[in-house]
Amino acid sequence: MGDSLRPDWSGRLQRLWRSARASSAPALVVSSPVNIKYLTGFDGTALLVATPAATWLLLDGRYEHAARDARAAGAIAGIDIRRVESRFDSTLASVTAELELAACACEAESVTVATLEAWRRVMPAMAFIPTYQWVEELRAIKDPFELERIRAACVATSEVGRALDTWVGAGRTEREIAHDIDAALLRAGCTRTAFPTIVASGPASAHPHARPTDRRLRDGDLVVLDFGGVIDGYCGDLTRMAGVGRVSAEARTMFDAVRAAHGAALAAVRAQAFAYEVDTAARRVLMEHGFGEAFLHATGHGLGLEVHEAPRLGRAGEDRSQTANRLEAGMVCTIEPGAYLEGIGGVRLEDDVLVTAEGSEVLTDVPRDLLPV
Amino acid sequence: MGDSLRPDWSGRLQRLWRSARASSAPALVVSSPVNIKYLTGFDGTALLVATPAATWLLLDGRYEHAARDARAAGAIAGIDIRRVESRFDSTLASVTAELELAACACEAESVTVATLEAWRRVMPAMAFIPTYQWVEELRAIKDPFELERIRAACVATSEVGRALDTWVGAGRTEREIAHDIDAALLRAGCTRTAFPTIVASGPASAHPHARPTDRRLRDGDLVVLDFGGVIDGYCGDLTRMAGVGRVSAEARTMFDAVRAAHGAALAAVRAQAFAYEVDTAARRVLMEHGFGEAFLHATGHGLGLEVHEAPRLGRAGEDRSQTANRLEAGMVCTIEPGAYLEGIGGVRLEDDVLVTAEGSEVLTDVPRDLLPV
Repeated sequence: MGDSLRPDWSGRLQRLWRSARASSAPALVVSSPVNIKYLTGFDGTALLVATPAATWLLLDGRYEHAARDARAAGAIAGIDIRRVESRFDSTLASVTAELELAACACEAESVTVATLEAWRRVMPAMAFIPTYQWVEELRAIKDPFELERIRAACVATSEVGRALDTWVGAGRTEREIAHDIDAALLRAGCTRTAFPTIVASGPASAHPHARPTDRRLRDGDLVVLDFGGVIDGYCGDLTRMAGVGRVSAEARTMFDAVRAAHGAALAAVRAQAFAYEVDTAARRVLMEHGFGEAFLHATGHGLGLEVHEAPRLGRAGEDRSQTANRLEAGMVCTIEPGAYLEGIGGVRLEDDVLVTAEGSEVLTDVPRDLLPV
Repeated sequence: MGDSLRPDWSGRLQRLWRSARASSAPALVVSSPVNIKYLTGFDGTALLVATPAATWLLLDGRYEHAARDARAAGAIAGIDIRRVESRFDSTLASVTAELELAACACEAESVTVATLEAWRRVMPAMAFIPTYQWVEELRAIKDPFELERIRAACVATSEVGRALDTWVGAGRTEREIAHDIDAALLRAGCTRTAFPTIVASGPASAHPHARPTDRRLRDGDLVVLDFGGVIDGYCGDLTRMAGVGRVSAEARTMFDAVRAAHGAALAAVRAQAFAYEVDTAARRVLMEHGFGEAFLHATGHGLGLEVHEAPRLGRAGEDRSQTANRLEAGMVCTIEPGAYLEGIGGVRLEDDVLVTAEGSEVLTDVPRDLLPV
């Protein structure tokens, strides 16, 4: 992984104030830690008060060294730091009073009802305007620094993905295999796993959110292996399938259908496509193969500082994301159709792709065959 | 760890409706996942609608198997399951309409402003009453099942704590040591780490929230080792100190002061003591040794399904927790005074204790000496 690029934090703040959603707001209080990290480079407990003219980072004494370290690394440039002596809400009240703010946007999806009540108690005259996805919308389009990190996370995750047969085998437990995958991600240079690794074998493979247990892999099992590593805060996310010994014909049929659906979804990715079109492409193939009802989740999700972020590649008409519904060049998302049937098992295949003007670039690189073990 | 006890989920729901806070409420919507797990045994994405007469668990198709598994294990007894077909808020609206509820308590510290806005859109006539710490207050007092699990987590965490000299040594990096501690926690029977393990050496030891880096331990370093394992969902949390080679006299003085503060805090724990009194006991000792300003955090926190929960053992007059300020028999908390000085380093010693009528029982069992490595 090169260090050729540095994040352009001040550029991100400028993009925020130029965005359609934020351009008319007097100020935004950013409380989502990952949004604060994205806008400033500071990674810790803090509040950010941003106006088009200036930006304040409010943090307590425990994080002053982290702020110093971040500044030394070029982050928090041009941002004023305000130390919180006792409570964040009273410091927020002082800063907004100094700025003579009468109204303030806040992040509806991050601020709890309790926090907003506390703010209103100490700032009774302030109009708080709940907002949605202002920073998340910016984050959906990755800049060159971010792409470099996501590529590195996908390279490391793929390295582990190509070695799965080292750990996956009859007689081993799901938990043992998950531990081995986690250790391999760390050896591959990841600082942590992006989420708790899923190893779901046999009956559990039919459950998309299964957790590793002490069950031992046995002949005939389908095994879902879903894992990812983090590099410099950016996530990779990969799912591959193994088949233990002799896998049933039904299981093989389901695998082939999911693989075809995965290909169809990949082919549907391109800038300006509607996100639901990618989902429709996968879902149509699964329906044609009789697995329409067995596809229990969306086809994909954005990937970046969080392992689930905008955009959501969900079913037509049920897109709950508040971001633009069209894919754009520079978005990174997973493509992960699946099928799950009690009694037979489950199959999911997942890759990470960069959306481009013409189509997509697949960032993960692991054969998609049903791994024989 | 024995399986002699089973959680008394229905007893917990009964305690909720008998509690002073909840007893006059018509209904409570529980949205905090850990509170749902505590009240029902279900561990996944869900909403719980509870009235004194009946309880509904709302969950989507991806979690139906988890609900079945939970029921097979004796959980979710007497609770109706309602499948969410498209959106949680519309299913919540149906359930509250069937119950003819005109008012509903909700968890202010868990519900975001966005979620409450969505609920109000689909339930325009409903009065939502923001509440604080209703379930958390119950969770603060551990029942026999929980105590058995916490004891097991503390035993496993202590086993790793007594073997620290296996991994901590000059020339090794913080990250390598943290990985070894994590692997040892899993070998000791933990399902996961309770939080990202802290290994903070030399200058970084002065930062309470330092994260492991590639820095190699060297002569004279103080090393903060803060880690814990989870068993059956319950957390252990332990901090011990190592000194590499020849540690300075100032560092030694600071260690001795923190150790004395730790003893004073432990001696102050007993049922009916105010939580702040435990903090005062530790803080007074550190002040007497000239480290009052160097103690940057609270003396302790509750421990259970979450690694930070009620009660908070903080400074007199700044207790932000909304739970009762007195300790009660059956509470489990950490005792973890510390001192942090730029240029010298930092020291923290942490044990987990059960509050009893007469005093406390220390659940962790690792020598508190400065470990020479």
